[in-house]
Amino acid sequence: MKKLDENRFDLRYINKFASLMTVGNGYFGLRASHEENYVGQTRGMYVAGIYNKATANEPSDLVNLPDMVGMNIELDGEYFSLITGEILSYQRQLNLENGELRRDIVWKNGAGSRFRLTFQRLAAKNDLHVLATKLTVTSLDKPAQMKIVTGIDAQQTNYGRQHLIEEKVRVAEGDLLQGIYKTTESGQTIALAACCTCSANGGIAHTAKNRQLLSAIKHDLPADAPFVLEKIGVIYTSLDGDLREQSPEEASEAALRSFSAAGYDALLHESAAEWAQFWKEKRIKVSSTRDFDQLALDFSVYQLEVMTPAHDERFSVGAKGLTGEGYKGHVFWDTEIFIIPFHLFTEPEKARKLLRYRYLKLKQALGKAASNGYEGALFPWESAFTGEEETPEFAAINIKTGKRQKVASALAEHHIVADIAYTVVKYYQNTLDDTFMKKEGLELLKETSRFWISRAEEEQGQLVIKDVIGPDEYTEHVDNNAFTNYMAWYNVKQALFFMDKYGDDDGQLKNRGHEFLKRLYLPKANDDKIIPQDDTFLSKPEIDLSRYKLAQGSQGILMDYSRQEVNEMQILKQADVVMLLYLLPDLFPRDILSKNLDYYEEHTIHDSSLSKAIHAIVAARAGDIDKSYQFFQESCLIDLGPNPHSSDEGLHAASLGAIWMAAMFGFANVSIKNQRLNLDPRLPSEWSELTFPLIFQGTRLHIAITHEQAVITKVAGDDLYIELKGNVFLVSNIVEVDLG
Amino acid sequence: MKKLDENRFDLRYINKFASLMTVGNGYFGLRASHEENYVGQTRGMYVAGIYNKATANEPSDLVNLPDMVGMNIELDGEYFSLITGEILSYQRQLNLENGELRRDIVWKNGAGSRFRLTFQRLAAKNDLHVLATKLTVTSLDKPAQMKIVTGIDAQQTNYGRQHLIEEKVRVAEGDLLQGIYKTTESGQTIALAACCTCSANGGIAHTAKNRQLLSAIKHDLPADAPFVLEKIGVIYTSLDGDLREQSPEEASEAALRSFSAAGYDALLHESAAEWAQFWKEKRIKVSSTRDFDQLALDFSVYQLEVMTPAHDERFSVGAKGLTGEGYKGHVFWDTEIFIIPFHLFTEPEKARKLLRYRYLKLKQALGKAASNGYEGALFPWESAFTGEEETPEFAAINIKTGKRQKVASALAEHHIVADIAYTVVKYYQNTLDDTFMKKEGLELLKETSRFWISRAEEEQGQLVIKDVIGPDEYTEHVDNNAFTNYMAWYNVKQALFFMDKYGDDDGQLKNRGHEFLKRLYLPKANDDKIIPQDDTFLSKPEIDLSRYKLAQGSQGILMDYSRQEVNEMQILKQADVVMLLYLLPDLFPRDILSKNLDYYEEHTIHDSSLSKAIHAIVAARAGDIDKSYQFFQESCLIDLGPNPHSSDEGLHAASLGAIWMAAMFGFANVSIKNQRLNLDPRLPSEWSELTFPLIFQGTRLHIAITHEQAVITKVAGDDLYIELKGNVFLVSNIVEVDLG
Repeated sequence: MKKLDENRFDLRYINKFASLMTVGNGYFGLRASHEENYVGQTRGMYVAGIYNKATANEPSDLVNLPDMVGMNIELDGEYFSLITGEILSYQRQLNLENGELRRDIVWKNGAGSRFRLTFQRLAAKNDLHVLATKLTVTSLDKPAQMKIVTGIDAQQTNYGRQHLIEEKVRVAEGDLLQGIYKTTESGQTIALAACCTCSANGGIAHTAKNRQLLSAIKHDLPADAPFVLEKIGVIYTSLDGDLREQSPEEASEAALRSFSAAGYDALLHESAAEWAQFWKEKRIKVSSTRDFDQLALDFSVYQLEVMTPAHDERFSVGAKGLTGEGYKGHVFWDTEIFIIPFHLFTEPEKARKLLRYRYLKLKQALGKAASNGYEGALFPWESAFTGEEETPEFAAINIKTGKRQKVASALAEHHIVADIAYTVVKYYQNTLDDTFMKKEGLELLKETSRFWISRAEEEQGQLVIKDVIGPDEYTEHVDNNAFTNYMAWYNVKQALFFMDKYGDDDGQLKNRGHEFLKRLYLPKANDDKIIPQDDTFLSKPEIDLSRYKLAQGSQGILMDYSRQEVNEMQILKQADVVMLLYLLPDLFPRDILSKNLDYYEEHTIHDSSLSKAIHAIVAARAGDIDKSYQFFQESCLIDLGPNPHSSDEGLHAASLGAIWMAAMFGFANVSIKNQRLNLDPRLPSEWSELTFPLIFQGTRLHIAITHEQAVITKVAGDDLYIELKGNVFLVSNIVEVDLG
Repeated sequence: MKKLDENRFDLRYINKFASLMTVGNGYFGLRASHEENYVGQTRGMYVAGIYNKATANEPSDLVNLPDMVGMNIELDGEYFSLITGEILSYQRQLNLENGELRRDIVWKNGAGSRFRLTFQRLAAKNDLHVLATKLTVTSLDKPAQMKIVTGIDAQQTNYGRQHLIEEKVRVAEGDLLQGIYKTTESGQTIALAACCTCSANGGIAHTAKNRQLLSAIKHDLPADAPFVLEKIGVIYTSLDGDLREQSPEEASEAALRSFSAAGYDALLHESAAEWAQFWKEKRIKVSSTRDFDQLALDFSVYQLEVMTPAHDERFSVGAKGLTGEGYKGHVFWDTEIFIIPFHLFTEPEKARKLLRYRYLKLKQALGKAASNGYEGALFPWESAFTGEEETPEFAAINIKTGKRQKVASALAEHHIVADIAYTVVKYYQNTLDDTFMKKEGLELLKETSRFWISRAEEEQGQLVIKDVIGPDEYTEHVDNNAFTNYMAWYNVKQALFFMDKYGDDDGQLKNRGHEFLKRLYLPKANDDKIIPQDDTFLSKPEIDLSRYKLAQGSQGILMDYSRQEVNEMQILKQADVVMLLYLLPDLFPRDILSKNLDYYEEHTIHDSSLSKAIHAIVAARAGDIDKSYQFFQESCLIDLGPNPHSSDEGLHAASLGAIWMAAMFGFANVSIKNQRLNLDPRLPSEWSELTFPLIFQGTRLHIAITHEQAVITKVAGDDLYIELKGNVFLVSNIVEVDLG
């Protein structure tokens, strides 16, 4: 299995790689910031669900916790830093196979002495609370004096916003550092403990000042003999479900003693075993002329795993996972539309938990609807722990007025309601989980339907949905956004279906629902077969977008035009209609796919990272595999590409999900049709084989696709009918189908 | 006049020089952090009086305000930084004469192109709200692309504690950046505005994100032609007394327009004129074989000026002035005992304002006394804006137990009450300001006396003061600390004197006061003529302190012994008794001075920066001029010496006052005897002349002292009797006295 490599030290990429090489386990994520400090390096460690409002007028942040990996290393009186002295060799690798991050350096200090330093770290997959690090230092030329200062540093902030009260710091039994912190507003307790163990004993002294609890370790390095420092840390919070009557403070001390005694190598061994099992069950493999494709897929799957808080249904996945502070760690529609699919097809229990997150926040969604004058459930555009609306009030400066621009999404980006309902339906179709569907599923479908019914208004004899923002956020406050209207329609339709299925007797809702379905305006394709994005979109002027497309992802257009001006042109951040074609393929014939993909692609900058992989899927389904593969490759570059700053504030979680989706729903062309798993594979010419595991309706399959044939193997579970290229097969052992 | 120089760039000294080269004007102070960022560089800008509690369980911080001087400078795609590329020349100077900080650099980037950069900045002395900066960049070898990003950066914190809500940011009229911030707890508004003006127009774009409001300026530098960027900033707050009906927001915008139009050079010219006047009136000059002596005196006087908020009597001087965050900007006895003397003898109105600060906080001092079971006024050991006790609960980690040690000063370091009373008396003796003394002065003296009377307790027929901490904080919870008892006695004695003088008829207080004076135990010198520091001190074991004295100022002893252990030995942070001999010289004959100085010096580590200069004064008065000069020189090194980290968190404000005091009260030996100015000069052999201005009882004098004679010139005011070497002279014009 390939590793993610960084082969040279380049300051411009420092925050990109810090995001890319995040280690984590769904409970916490730790950015791959270097142990030593650099100007502009943003450290970050986050625990899923630990949010806080720094002040009353700000939305919640995913709290950047006190740092436990920073180290000042002095070698013969000189601070170790890769921008001084000379780098004789440098190699950093995130080992996707076992979750370990490792950095190997040979460094010559200003005085000409050479040192070998190896840094290792991991977030344990077997015990979610454990962060283990190991440093090995060897003085290659002569004996040297070394001093290492490291500990628990609570000076960390979220870009200047401090969320934690330092409640207590102490050193127990001479070596165990412990800090107890409390979030200022949400009132959560975080207990951190860390302990350093050295291969040789020099002096150690502890200090506590200015929110830093530090150990200073001195040691005289002999020539050419490695010195090893293991620092094991643990994280417990008041949200932990596994505390067993202990306080986080007590739990952290007891756990640290045990893990510190085990030592780094044993912890790595145990964690790696869990990773091995993970890959066995979930890896999607491709034989491609381009090695990068496999790396991109492995990377996506790794990140989808470490971003998902599967241990607790009270949390969901932030827009940057646990890799950075972009979007403040908030949860968007990204989870339902881009992240749940991977889990749904590999471990549906995780998908259920993520949907339970929405169910648990239903009360707040009902409240948001009511306070906006609607019925039913209006889920917040951005949510965090409480389920209240968390969208910030302001975005960037308006380049014309100099004022900050209001963010309208909380008021008008209502499609999230239907996106959640859509995924509830997909969850059921995949799992046939009646227990969930009868209770949480049905309630979610009914309340979201109620919202849409109240949201629509009468105009010229039909129902319209006015003043919304679709997924294309460059077009605000429009009427009858096609994506929104179709998805609302689907939402209500499915609610009625499941009400019937489970004998729900809410006659009033049924009647209103049927009326809604009958009368809701659904924008139809025009004479050119283009579905209008909204009532006015196609009549707006067009401009040449080529130079903005070259810098896609940067929102550079907003440096030349105000949002208002962009709103009045046919300029898309991402293509609503293409997304609609992907989500509801049964509603649109193939020629509609091609025509609309071409039209909207021309007007789309792809400033949203959610955009490209969806175009890949729709292009594949429309039969244009070359174009699809090109979109796929480009989507793989959103985080892994050469742009040094694209991922500074964290990875694009949805985009990572979308890369997996592009392979699965584009090239393998997996879908659910007539409640049956459907495959209609079309591999790019660069790929000779695509294999992947898949769970559908409780049956575990292994699927291998080449240009010539598809081999479907039942790994476990009941026999299953699947449809492949229009033919239905019963899979009870192995099915081989000729694709020629 | 000498400048304070930094001749080479050395990262180890980065925070020391940031403190040393602070520009300021008593309204605000700006650390001399470099425009470009370095790991470990602590930026800081502070406005006097703007304090805030980050969270309820912490004391107030002097708020580190958003940064306005930081700049990212890209030259041909490479960030300007002195740790990359090559420094061809480097010179930084704080021009004490005109208050300007200037840095001249020739730098070669990694690609081998040379650039000359000159950075200038000042805190205007003529308009306290103005911070002006100027950058001149010349590409020396060839045309180059330049990009500068600068603005208002509200990510600044006090070591991780964020005090400000970002209320509003905007760009007005395309170039004026404005940020409005509010402190989270104290509710003060801070309005910052800044505007960049360039000598040539390239592109400019603005962004607002993550608490940073930034302008990005692009320009193509021609070869060998300077590009000039002036950035003028203004600071207004809701505490400003000069707002005239405007909000800070309005004031900042209007003021910035006007100052920005004036330009850097004009602002420098006007500010420099104020500085010239300042030096004319306040400079102490010495002809020494060592140039450093004059620099140290000029530096002290400069810093005493820029640290003092003379514009507003609601604030006083923090222990680090406005140069850093040490001691959180809190006000200690340092102000009365170490900083007021300079003002009292050069501009007594400032001394009055600083005493008014205490008077305005009398209510809180009465409250603190009452809540501790005492009468009268118990001033807090540390205070900030409100006058409430602000001493932190905890200090460093106890090296034996691993727990943080409680700070006992708020509970027991009561001598500050008498220190304030003492300075009230000195103020009157110097100014004969009956208006102040009848009202504020008398009230302060009476309430502080009431405290001492209630604080003393009866034991074996006399009054004792138990469980206190004297100025020597290494000795806690002792009984009858000599310094405290004598100062309390002086406090009550003076209260009674002024009650009589002004006919105050509080008979009960008078009776109790007389009883207190009669019965208070005042420790007398023992057979060896040593005044015991407290009841038990002289009986405690002694250890060899020489290695701790070598590292004085570092509190290294606390790394080897716990505070409890230090408390049980004859180990002094600073010498109580020597301080007492300095403050109340009339009570002790000269042989007591010598004996006690010798004894306590041996047991004093000088871990307090308040210590050494007082030893210099007492040594001078005891007749040991060589030793005195040695102490003086050592005291000048506390901030200006080679220790790279002694001043990282700010300058030692009291120590700077003490350097001036050592020259004035030691070598010139100025004192007030029988309500008359008394001089008994004794210059070190290295000094040939000492001259200084001085104001006493309204008369402005100029005094010149050599080894041979003293020349006293009346500059303005009434004729004045002064005493010199035991003889009384009337100064009506010039008096020349032979000292031979």
